[in-house]
Amino acid sequence: MIKIYGDIQSGNCYKIKLLCSFLSLEHEWHHIDILAGDTKHADFLSKNPNGKIPLLALPDGRYLTESNAIMNYLAANSKLLPSDNFDLAKVQQWQFFEQYSHEPYIAVARFIAKYLGLPEDRRAEYESKHQNGYKALSIMESQLAKTPYLIGEQLTTADIALYAYTHVADEGGFDLTNYPAILAWLNRIQNQPNYIAMNSTD
Amino acid sequence: MIKIYGDIQSGNCYKIKLLCSFLSLEHEWHHIDILAGDTKHADFLSKNPNGKIPLLALPDGRYLTESNAIMNYLAANSKLLPSDNFDLAKVQQWQFFEQYSHEPYIAVARFIAKYLGLPEDRRAEYESKHQNGYKALSIMESQLAKTPYLIGEQLTTADIALYAYTHVADEGGFDLTNYPAILAWLNRIQNQPNYIAMNSTD
Repeated sequence: MIKIYGDIQSGNCYKIKLLCSFLSLEHEWHHIDILAGDTKHADFLSKNPNGKIPLLALPDGRYLTESNAIMNYLAANSKLLPSDNFDLAKVQQWQFFEQYSHEPYIAVARFIAKYLGLPEDRRAEYESKHQNGYKALSIMESQLAKTPYLIGEQLTTADIALYAYTHVADEGGFDLTNYPAILAWLNRIQNQPNYIAMNSTD
Repeated sequence: MIKIYGDIQSGNCYKIKLLCSFLSLEHEWHHIDILAGDTKHADFLSKNPNGKIPLLALPDGRYLTESNAIMNYLAANSKLLPSDNFDLAKVQQWQFFEQYSHEPYIAVARFIAKYLGLPEDRRAEYESKHQNGYKALSIMESQLAKTPYLIGEQLTTADIALYAYTHVADEGGFDLTNYPAILAWLNRIQNQPNYIAMNSTD
């Protein structure tokens, strides 16, 4: 059986958990506590020298890292990953957008506020995250005003990638009131069969 | 014919130019000058609301952004992109690593030094980029000491993704002397048929 090393409070790990639920993929979940330093231990670094979660271990001993690469691997030949080359590239486009233009602002603002308790010496950094975070939300809003999901009519791993931190953006101080297409899309995902919430221990 | 909007001095744009050369793909190159504000004009933003290059325009009017998504699209069914699902996921793993753990340090240090002239008010930021940049180089070194290319025996779009800014890392103040496997890999790529240099106007 596949093993996933992750922390269910991390959006990047939740992507994999939600995908496994949507696709009814059996897996073993190994809890990793980042704040306790689990990703810095030699045993973990031997699996992923970059010291990051999530990490996928295959039954044959091979490892895969990077949340979006793991999702696309697990979703191959399923309804969550298109087979058309251009659509597949569009999925990746939104996932690279997520990692470069969305996560470093929205997830990091949430981390500073929720996990570090917004310490005074990181307040300026926290506030500086909001401008680019809102820019990322505007780009999503503009697409989602045109299509129900990011690349068109179908839910894909691109939506799961962006959903992970967007649906908890309020924990990073983001107000989504002026993003009605995003709010409708969040609701559309939450109403999918087999949807599970972020802190679910199911 | 496909059109590519980019600046040949940008590593992210060079990825596409090098890939097109390796695959002998005919294309029209439209020069975009970031420092002159070209990516902030309404005409460009209508093509990519995120205001970033490179941008691919297909003959049928569709657009694709994000350098690694563009490469994987153009390389589909070629020798530069594996067909095995796990290998394909490994290519993406290294590309997400590049965008999250490598480019924000190595490319940004280079940008501050080469394009902005290392102004005093950005020196602390410049120096702070070096620790994580060297960490990224160490992770690459560890893989390249084991295999000639990042995912194994074959050159893929993962190598082009990491090559783009690694081969000019010295312009961001990085010294590669202690990374012999990276140096051998850079040389291996430079000796590929149809290799072109970054500022080539061919």
